[in-house]
Amino acid sequence: MRIKKKDIFFETLENMADSLVQAADYFAEQVASLKDIPQFTKTMKDYENQCDTYTHTIITELNKTFITPLERDDIMQLTTKMDDVLDGLEACASRFDMYHLNEPDKYINAFAEILRECAYEIQKAIQLLSQKKLLPIREHSIRLNDLENQGDDIMRKCIKELFATVTDPIELIKRKEIYERLENTTDSCEDVANMLESIIMSNS
Amino acid sequence: MRIKKKDIFFETLENMADSLVQAADYFAEQVASLKDIPQFTKTMKDYENQCDTYTHTIITELNKTFITPLERDDIMQLTTKMDDVLDGLEACASRFDMYHLNEPDKYINAFAEILRECAYEIQKAIQLLSQKKLLPIREHSIRLNDLENQGDDIMRKCIKELFATVTDPIELIKRKEIYERLENTTDSCEDVANMLESIIMSNS
Amino acid sequence: MRIKKKDIFFETLENMADSLVQAADYFAEQVASLKDIPQFTKTMKDYENQCDTYTHTIITELNKTFITPLERDDIMQLTTKMDDVLDGLEACASRFDMYHLNEPDKYINAFAEILRECAYEIQKAIQLLSQKKLLPIREHSIRLNDLENQGDDIMRKCIKELFATVTDPIELIKRKEIYERLENTTDSCEDVANMLESIIMSNS
Repeated sequence: MRIKKKDIFFETLENMADSLVQAADYFAEQVASLKDIPQFTKTMKDYENQCDTYTHTIITELNKTFITPLERDDIMQLTTKMDDVLDGLEACASRFDMYHLNEPDKYINAFAEILRECAYEIQKAIQLLSQKKLLPIREHSIRLNDLENQGDDIMRKCIKELFATVTDPIELIKRKEIYERLENTTDSCEDVANMLESIIMSNS
Repeated sequence: MRIKKKDIFFETLENMADSLVQAADYFAEQVASLKDIPQFTKTMKDYENQCDTYTHTIITELNKTFITPLERDDIMQLTTKMDDVLDGLEACASRFDMYHLNEPDKYINAFAEILRECAYEIQKAIQLLSQKKLLPIREHSIRLNDLENQGDDIMRKCIKELFATVTDPIELIKRKEIYERLENTTDSCEDVANMLESIIMSNS
Repeated sequence: MRIKKKDIFFETLENMADSLVQAADYFAEQVASLKDIPQFTKTMKDYENQCDTYTHTIITELNKTFITPLERDDIMQLTTKMDDVLDGLEACASRFDMYHLNEPDKYINAFAEILRECAYEIQKAIQLLSQKKLLPIREHSIRLNDLENQGDDIMRKCIKELFATVTDPIELIKRKEIYERLENTTDSCEDVANMLESIIMSNS
């Protein structure tokens, strides 16, 4: 009996999605307390580096593999978009350090919860892709679009409150940028969804 | 006699372009007075949602249509770029609400006039595309490039004036961001032009 | 004996890369002194316009050439990414004027040195591409990735210092934006590297 070896591309994409879930979980936990910012930023940087390694594996394999399970360009773009989500989380984490921010903020927590949910949706979608179950992916891409809309709503609400209540301009600059980066990271999750939609489209 | 049914892709792109013209007209009118900001932001959100519906129609049709009048990817990208213009206008409109800004500003009006002209150029180009008159599209894409350059000139002028005259940092942050978002929206119009150029290139 | 005429696409890409090197050299020199900002911004605008002319040549040639030495889309994207680097340098230069900034800053100098090195790496990579020596390009794309990482490190360090030491919010806004634009320009250099990787991938 021959055990079919798992395809290296799907395996690596699944590993990326798993890292993303772990990173988003950890991120949500940490922003709720902001107890140890140096450790927080260091761990997020480790997750980002791990994802870069997976990206590198994909590029190397694309270079030496003749027949790929999806269009080469689709694999590359999906990888890049997932990597963007992790880059976004890491960039937000590093701002707590760069801006010397250590007071938790309910809006940041709300974004972190959305991003945690996004990571789980991406993970489920990638598992389905790996099993070649294309159509059920759509449910998760729709959910990712919903989550991005929620992120947009929170952003508008918190920026409005920020300008109505904060009088220290430097404090305002810090919060505004973190909110915007969090919202951009939900946009990157939606980009993953759109890339998945495009893969469904060209393979069904 | 058989009346040829209009192609659904071109029809939807024309609908998007019409919405864009209406939205840009309305936007220019509203920023000139800023009389009723809640209504302004609500109406712009409606235009944005309408465009999302058109985008959704295009995606659905791409999924079920075997032979498309242009490359699938070209249709998708053109749709996305037009949608970005409307997203940009809507995001600007919402800032007047988020930032509690209700005083008209001559630079914002100048940008709004440029964006209104851009919308008309896009509409004309899409009509030509729909009639398969590819080469005359170039005139409008050149015009869109000119308008983007004008937007860039205004931006540099108004940012320079802002830093020379405004001493309240929070006021400065608000104006700076709205100017930049308006300028980015002219960039999105140029992206539509570049996408049209690319379509002309691969179809002639 | 027939002298082989150089391919117009490679020739133009090499011209762009040469312009980029000249512009990055000049930029590094100027930010070190900031003696004559009107001349600095004007010269940088000239470099940008020159690059736009090269981009236009590439588009025109793509339109009339049937067989191209690389995929049409790869040529177009590589051109666009190189153009983005020059746009980034020019946009930074113009901020010294818009923000009335005339004091040199060690971090800006550090970024300028990185960007100068990036320009040289891009030039070498384009020369190899033009000679169809694809695999040795990788060394330069790896180097561009390293330089982008260095840019990222400087950015985090200087933003941290900025928020720890600068109390004038408008001063902080100015420096923050210039640092970020410089860092984004190193990202654009990395995009050139990634595009080159993608060209190696699909041609070897």
